Amino acid sequence: MNDMDADTKALCEQLQAIWYKQIPLSQAMEMRIADFNGLALTTEASLAPNVNVHGTAFAGSLYAIQALTGWGMMHLQLALNTLDASIVIASGQINYAKPVAQDIRVRCSFGDHLAEMEKLRANGKGRFPLTCHVLLADGKPAGEFSGEYAVRLNR
Amino acid sequence: MNDMDADTKALCEQLQAIWYKQIPLSQAMEMRIADFNGLALTTEASLAPNVNVHGTAFAGSLYAIQALTGWGMMHLQLALNTLDASIVIASGQINYAKPVAQDIRVRCSFGDHLAEMEKLRANGKGRFPLTCHVLLADGKPAGEFSGEYAVRLNR
Repeated sequence: MNDMDADTKALCEQLQAIWYKQIPLSQAMEMRIADFNGLALTTEASLAPNVNVHGTAFAGSLYAIQALTGWGMMHLQLALNTLDASIVIASGQINYAKPVAQDIRVRCSFGDHLAEMEKLRANGKGRFPLTCHVLLADGKPAGEFSGEYAVRLNR
Repeated sequence: MNDMDADTKALCEQLQAIWYKQIPLSQAMEMRIADFNGLALTTEASLAPNVNVHGTAFAGSLYAIQALTGWGMMHLQLALNTLDASIVIASGQINYAKPVAQDIRVRCSFGDHLAEMEKLRANGKGRFPLTCHVLLADGKPAGEFSGEYAVRLNR
């Protein structure tokens, strides 16, 4: 993980521990948190465990890593808002514009979800559409993932 | 694998060997072919390696298993048509209507793609939209996956 303040780093370490302990595929994919700055979460995964017959990243891995990055972003935002909630993904869409022939690097930015976060706090339920991109070496996206995350407060 | 004639069984064993050798995540997910009757392909995966924080199937696994079942169906149909081609998934959509709290069972039916198969044979390129479902114990679907597979003849 990159330079982060101690609280942020602890939060990210806790998230990665949840993934590895409770979602074994995250470990099989060797998925790890590279950076979190409060608004953008960057995750990485080696190509080798995620390779396909073409020697590039397996479409299923690219989806799973992005879906879990979005889930992780939601988890982090809830923690920053001191909300205890369960998160499930209701639907997902992905396109694969370019093959990924290198280690996988995913960026998820949290958009403006202030109103939905207030609705969640008030009503106990919220729906958050999040997008992720796989970044190529030149910084350009290899495609786009979008998922809708259904969040319900634990109370 | 269920009862199949010798040729079909050999074809399915070959496909599973490709998955395990060239797509390591298929092995991490413990994905296997359960049945293929020429028109419908059924695959299975144990819940344990694919579990999530809720004790049900991880959304990323459900997508990856269905995307690879669709890819496998395309591979089998090309083999039955004695076409040597490369297959990539161009885009995918999935919804998760119900949680999957059991071993994962996926069914992919090959629709009527005769015209597209002829186009592929004639022009060397084709696009095949395929759908899969995760089947629950009561036989009802837990949601739907659809993917568009871009196929190009090797020649």
